[in-house]
Amino acid sequence: MRLRDVGEFGLIARIARAAGPARGAVALGIGDDAAVLRVRRGEQVVVTTDAFVERVHFRFDRQSARHIGRFALAACLSDLAAMGARPLAFTAALAAPPRLPLATADGLTAGLLEGARRHGSPLVGGNVTRARETSLTLTALGAVAAGRALTRSGTRAGDRVLVTGALGASALARARADAGRGRLTRVPEPRLRAGRALATLPGVVACIDVSDGLAADLGHLLGPSLRCPLDPERLPLPRGFQAACRALGRDWRRLALAGGEDYELLFTVRPHAPGAARFARRLGLPVTEIGVVRAGRPARGGAGGFRHF
Amino acid sequence: MRLRDVGEFGLIARIARAAGPARGAVALGIGDDAAVLRVRRGEQVVVTTDAFVERVHFRFDRQSARHIGRFALAACLSDLAAMGARPLAFTAALAAPPRLPLATADGLTAGLLEGARRHGSPLVGGNVTRARETSLTLTALGAVAAGRALTRSGTRAGDRVLVTGALGASALARARADAGRGRLTRVPEPRLRAGRALATLPGVVACIDVSDGLAADLGHLLGPSLRCPLDPERLPLPRGFQAACRALGRDWRRLALAGGEDYELLFTVRPHAPGAARFARRLGLPVTEIGVVRAGRPARGGAGGFRHF
Repeated sequence: MRLRDVGEFGLIARIARAAGPARGAVALGIGDDAAVLRVRRGEQVVVTTDAFVERVHFRFDRQSARHIGRFALAACLSDLAAMGARPLAFTAALAAPPRLPLATADGLTAGLLEGARRHGSPLVGGNVTRARETSLTLTALGAVAAGRALTRSGTRAGDRVLVTGALGASALARARADAGRGRLTRVPEPRLRAGRALATLPGVVACIDVSDGLAADLGHLLGPSLRCPLDPERLPLPRGFQAACRALGRDWRRLALAGGEDYELLFTVRPHAPGAARFARRLGLPVTEIGVVRAGRPARGGAGGFRHF
Repeated sequence: MRLRDVGEFGLIARIARAAGPARGAVALGIGDDAAVLRVRRGEQVVVTTDAFVERVHFRFDRQSARHIGRFALAACLSDLAAMGARPLAFTAALAAPPRLPLATADGLTAGLLEGARRHGSPLVGGNVTRARETSLTLTALGAVAAGRALTRSGTRAGDRVLVTGALGASALARARADAGRGRLTRVPEPRLRAGRALATLPGVVACIDVSDGLAADLGHLLGPSLRCPLDPERLPLPRGFQAACRALGRDWRRLALAGGEDYELLFTVRPHAPGAARFARRLGLPVTEIGVVRAGRPARGGAGGFRHF
């Protein structure tokens, strides 16, 4: 069976059945002109859109359709985490050729819905269309107390830079798959709870999720007139990371600095904010201090992130 | 100049510059991990996603990039209109090959931003990625008083069916372009003000916007156990429509019934609700009563809408 055998409305009906009835913040879910979501008094709405394109962001020969769906939603929700928002719901736009196996479409849906349940962010609508290549475009909605969203701005010289979890695991998994040693199965965890906690902690200045790579995303926090020299030896790495990189003939420093798709939270705090250990306790996650912000232009070039064009 | 010459971040910077600073409901716009929007006390959030794919929804040889952007946003906002919501903002995901002329990307952006200004729905974020074909995926957010959203459900036998404006203009414009007689320039008007008024008027039951075609969209309001025989002679048509269809060798009834993309509001009202003339005054638009709902299965087949797979 292929998409063309069930058609647009057949596919939407399958997705709606799998998603089940509206719950949580959802007043009206899949099946109308639009979905309707409840927010609490005094909250603002947070919205982020991410696209995932075949052969750019995923490859059917390296990962299951379910993994693609899980990964895509994790990446999108990670932007809510970086704002300190709680997830409300998300929409999904699937574009695919009519010859796409129905099992693949069902796998993408299953992955999205697994993530939706895990993170309390139900699928409430979207779009299906034919296209020459397969893509998923997700829009996640969240809510945050008015004026309390964590943004990328505000960092000054003297602020300290911290990061949750470990860096490089996604890059290592991709390097393994590139080398033909196994398929991609790892799904990063969007740091939703940690983000919400950060939004309430004093001394926290700015936050971003590590999607393009540590060096590139740190650049987004620092802007053109600040820098923060990073010592790769101080970066938090997954267990056995250096040896695993060596075995693949890859430079562990590059993978940790520029790898991307870790979806850890990278944040800056004022000089007198508590230490990493105290943040780790409050966030319920490992937290590592990786540098101090200085005035002055960053060095040109270096470890860049992913370039789209 | 092509997309590859400015890169992902260069393109985002161009779009952000063209969009200008955050206004209206926007607490935080383009340039962070997510956007932040204000809603009023007692409001719910309405969200809808629409995708527009090259050669499926638009063709660069038949319409300008600006027209594509304008049209896409109008179609997406029309879903907010059908819910009775006021627009808050929208996100745009652009996927395109690196060889896409920068002028085309700028044209798409210009069209989106023209619509954004016209309808008070600013562009607050999105995504740019490379892909083999060009597509735009838009997500519009709106707000509606809690519990007052217009939905597709609730219609019963005896209810009357009304529609705003005229039907068939978009189908006629496409037929003209198909015949090589001119490019597509018409942009439908999302009936945002009329939708908000409908949501407050007593006797209004259900509402949908005419996107797939009158017959198909009426089917969404009626479901499997109601029908509403339509007399093409009673449909509101654009001036000169029948003659223009004849000149192209097209069946005007088919274009009016199944054409699609009119983005008028199709709604049902209880038997004793006011007449079309009264609705016309309240909505500030022509309103035509086109039929009465009856019990029983609709006739099979007939004038269908657009099939995606």
